[in-house]
Amino acid sequence: MSQPATPQHTAVVDLLALLAYGELQAFDQMAADARLAPDLHRRAVLSEMAAAEIVNYRRLAGRLADLGADAGAAMHPFVGALEEYHDQTAPKDWLEALTKAYVGDGIADDFYREVALRLAPPDRELVLDVLHDTRYADFAAEEIRGAIAADPKLANRLSMWARRLVGEGLSQAQRVAAERPSLALLLVGAADDDELGDLFKRLTTAHTARMFAVGLNN
Amino acid sequence: MSQPATPQHTAVVDLLALLAYGELQAFDQMAADARLAPDLHRRAVLSEMAAAEIVNYRRLAGRLADLGADAGAAMHPFVGALEEYHDQTAPKDWLEALTKAYVGDGIADDFYREVALRLAPPDRELVLDVLHDTRYADFAAEEIRGAIAADPKLANRLSMWARRLVGEGLSQAQRVAAERPSLALLLVGAADDDELGDLFKRLTTAHTARMFAVGLNN
Repeated sequence: MSQPATPQHTAVVDLLALLAYGELQAFDQMAADARLAPDLHRRAVLSEMAAAEIVNYRRLAGRLADLGADAGAAMHPFVGALEEYHDQTAPKDWLEALTKAYVGDGIADDFYREVALRLAPPDRELVLDVLHDTRYADFAAEEIRGAIAADPKLANRLSMWARRLVGEGLSQAQRVAAERPSLALLLVGAADDDELGDLFKRLTTAHTARMFAVGLNN
Repeated sequence: MSQPATPQHTAVVDLLALLAYGELQAFDQMAADARLAPDLHRRAVLSEMAAAEIVNYRRLAGRLADLGADAGAAMHPFVGALEEYHDQTAPKDWLEALTKAYVGDGIADDFYREVALRLAPPDRELVLDVLHDTRYADFAAEEIRGAIAADPKLANRLSMWARRLVGEGLSQAQRVAAERPSLALLLVGAADDDELGDLFKRLTTAHTARMFAVGLNN
C-alpha cells in the first residue's frame, strides 16, 4: 500500500532505509570480524550476532515494502557514507573489532533510540526493536575488560581507537544529514537549540559512561 | 548428559562437529560472497542465506552439548580441511560464488543425506534438517541460468570452475576420512564394495543432473 510522499513519509523511508543498510553493513563487518576471533567459540558467538542483524534487516525491508518503497533503491543514498565509515575503521584485530561494536553501535543505538521517540507507531516500535540487544554489548564489554585486566597497556591503544571511531562516525553522520535534508529535519526538526544541546549532552554522557565501564578513557 | 565414548558415539560427534564447522565456514564464505553481489537486493538475499547457516550451527552445537561434547574442541580436527577447501576455491566474482554454492553444497548435501540414513534418531532428523533448503539452490540456479543465457561463453568458464570445486572437495574429503577413521567407518562401515559403488553412482548422477539443469557440463 503506497502512501503520499510527504516530507514526513520521505523521512521515515529514509530512516528505515538507513537502518536497513546499517544492518547489512554491520552484518558484513561482523562476519568479517568473526575471522579475527581467537578461538572457535568466540568466532561462533560473533557469527551468531552477525546473523541477528540480518533478521532485523528483513523486518526493516518488510516495513519499507509496506510503505511502498523498494529497499534496494531506498538504501542506495546511504551506501557511500556507511561504506566510508567502515572502510575508514576496519579493525585490525579482535579487540579493535569488539571496541568498534561496543563503542560505535552504542552511540548509534542511543541516537536511534532518541529518533524513535519522534516517530509514530508502528515505526517507533520497529526501530526500538531492531536496536542491538544488551547481550551483544555485554559480550564485547566483558572481552574488553578482561583483555585490559590482563594487559593494562591496551587501554591506551583502544581508547585512541574509540576516539577515532567517534570522529569518523560524526563525520559520516554530518554527510548523511547534509545529503538528506528531510531526514535531518525529522531528527532535529521539532527541537530548538536547547533541546539539541540536551540531546548531545545525553549522548555524550552515555558514551563516556560506556567507555569508563570497560576501562577506556575519553 | 554424557554418554560412553564408543566408536559410534565418537563418529556421531565427529559428524555433527564436521557439519557445525561447515556451517561456520559456509557462513563466513557466503557473507564474504555477498560483497560480490551486483546490487543491494542480491546482496541482501545472500546475506540472509548466510544467516540461515548460523541458525543451523546453533542447533548442531546444542546437540553436541547434549552429547557431552564441547563444540569448539569437537570442530577443531576439521578446521584444516575445510579452510583449505575454501582457500583453494575463493570465488573471484558473483557467478563463481553462486556456482560454488550451487555445485559444492549440492554434492555435500546429497552426501550428508546418504549419511543421515545411517544415523539413529534424533541425529538423523537433525542432519536432514540442517541441509540447505531448495530456496537457496533455486536462487543460485536461476542466477547462473540467466547469466549463461545472456552470455553463452560463460558456460565454459563456469563448467571448468565447477570441476575444480569437485576436485578440491574430493581431495579434502579424503583427507578427513584418513584423519578420522571412526567417522569414515560410520560413513562406509556398513557398505560392501557394491553398495559403495552405488553410492558414488547416485552422487555422480545427481551432480551431473544439477550441472545440466543450469547449462553447465561435466
